Amino acid sequence: MEKELVFGHQNPDTDAIGTAIAFSYLQNKLGYNTEAVALGNPNDETAYALKTFGFEAPRVIKTAANEVNSVMLVDHNEPQQSVSDIEDVDVSNVVDHHRIMNFNTSKPLYYRAEPVGCTSTIVWKMFNENEVEIPKNLAGLMLSAIISDTLLLKSPTTTADDKEAVDALAKIADVDYEEYGLRMLKAGANIADKSEEELIDLDAKSFELNGNNVRVAQINVVDLPEAMARKEAFLKTMENSSKENGYDMFMLLITNILDSDSEALVVGSDDNKATFEKAFGKKLEDSEVKLPGVVSRKKQVVPPLTDAFEG
Amino acid sequence: MEKELVFGHQNPDTDAIGTAIAFSYLQNKLGYNTEAVALGNPNDETAYALKTFGFEAPRVIKTAANEVNSVMLVDHNEPQQSVSDIEDVDVSNVVDHHRIMNFNTSKPLYYRAEPVGCTSTIVWKMFNENEVEIPKNLAGLMLSAIISDTLLLKSPTTTADDKEAVDALAKIADVDYEEYGLRMLKAGANIADKSEEELIDLDAKSFELNGNNVRVAQINVVDLPEAMARKEAFLKTMENSSKENGYDMFMLLITNILDSDSEALVVGSDDNKATFEKAFGKKLEDSEVKLPGVVSRKKQVVPPLTDAFEG
Repeated sequence: MEKELVFGHQNPDTDAIGTAIAFSYLQNKLGYNTEAVALGNPNDETAYALKTFGFEAPRVIKTAANEVNSVMLVDHNEPQQSVSDIEDVDVSNVVDHHRIMNFNTSKPLYYRAEPVGCTSTIVWKMFNENEVEIPKNLAGLMLSAIISDTLLLKSPTTTADDKEAVDALAKIADVDYEEYGLRMLKAGANIADKSEEELIDLDAKSFELNGNNVRVAQINVVDLPEAMARKEAFLKTMENSSKENGYDMFMLLITNILDSDSEALVVGSDDNKATFEKAFGKKLEDSEVKLPGVVSRKKQVVPPLTDAFEG
Repeated sequence: MEKELVFGHQNPDTDAIGTAIAFSYLQNKLGYNTEAVALGNPNDETAYALKTFGFEAPRVIKTAANEVNSVMLVDHNEPQQSVSDIEDVDVSNVVDHHRIMNFNTSKPLYYRAEPVGCTSTIVWKMFNENEVEIPKNLAGLMLSAIISDTLLLKSPTTTADDKEAVDALAKIADVDYEEYGLRMLKAGANIADKSEEELIDLDAKSFELNGNNVRVAQINVVDLPEAMARKEAFLKTMENSSKENGYDMFMLLITNILDSDSEALVVGSDDNKATFEKAFGKKLEDSEVKLPGVVSRKKQVVPPLTDAFEG
């Protein structure tokens, strides 16, 4: 069987890395020959989860076509979020929980998407459907991915399937998921020792919205005032990044994981700022706006932005 | 639960209609509120299958947004093969076995694609995964869809999953699938009482290949010389249809279902005919070429055409 690489999106989070490891394990059990890799190094939260359950960080790749003809994607499908040479390889499998956008293939493939909180929830179902046993440490890693994406099952993206998966995986992993989950989230919420450059790139994705290159970054914190004290430095760094990378708008969502509230910082042209204000029905004040209850980029940020840019 | 419509592609075949009925049944059992409809009337083969297993032809719709906000697609995803106002509704579910092309959504959805011979094979798996029993007559209809798409498991698109599904469904339906399948295929292969206009539209799909609007129609026959005796009339009708509909190339694949051989007729500009010849490595003689062993548009026609048009 020809070797394939399995990976999640750029700026990988715990879902991208954890689910790549889980899906690669499942595919290998089903007779395929795969290696889980990553498009970047683990963030602090992911590193904590990997260490807790005894995994090494996956090898980081810059390109895929130099190694394989075919790849499997988890937790993304949009080409600009994938490996740089995605157009030069076949995609044989996708497991994802996002919208589908600009994803085109010349051949039929396996594509499994469900509107659930985390890709690991879908992979957990696939283990069950294929009657493959989940090892204890892998269950812990998949559990970490779901806790991360759903902010301990509190994000509005959370579904009954995610809760069922968390219960089942916590049992296999033999952990108290609430206690472990809070420890894991806090491990990723320490921003004091990171530069603004690092923070705005930690969990950032690009979206093409009606011809505009829109960057949406998110950071998790436990102390919003501590983060907002660095507002001017964030704005300047976002301006610089936009110039360097050609972003038409850059939004930074700063989320307090303890109470599920966010503040947003936005840079871009006046027109694009007006589009942002239309999307959320709120005025930016000095490039800033409070977004209480907004924690999900996928469910609460990208859809209104898409509608506003296309309207 | 808000009502949704379930349908297959334009110019529906037995997979498009049979699988829409099956998937709608499954979704309703899972608590959704759906109706299976169709984007056209059943062809002779599909009518035979519906009658054999006691189904009415699904209601034909021209648009969806006047009835519902959300739809479920089976056996297709490309917008130009779907309902005319597909851009005006949400797609909540797709079950398909084709490549993914120009299919974009603003929200996450259920998408289940597998590179198997027939969409009903995937839906058969979903019945099993959800532990929903398949009624005897529905098993017969799903069996008909798989026999149709795989030409009695002889097409190169046939997989081990299709064979397994056929065995299981034939058992539930209590039919000899080889004997029934040949009767059903022959019911759809009678071209004597149909005009060229009808025949080139019976099972025809449009593909956007590198900016070209390419039409690929297929007809099943049991007597190739009988069909080729009408060659000049076919070519003239294809020319007229191309002018009317703006096709840059029109290919008609005439397949003998008894020995799995085909002849192709092609109209279009000299450039596009040259691209066709590059795709198949064969010269057209008087707009005609023999394609022995070619029976699958999806696996043996669209991929080489795509490569040739994009090369």
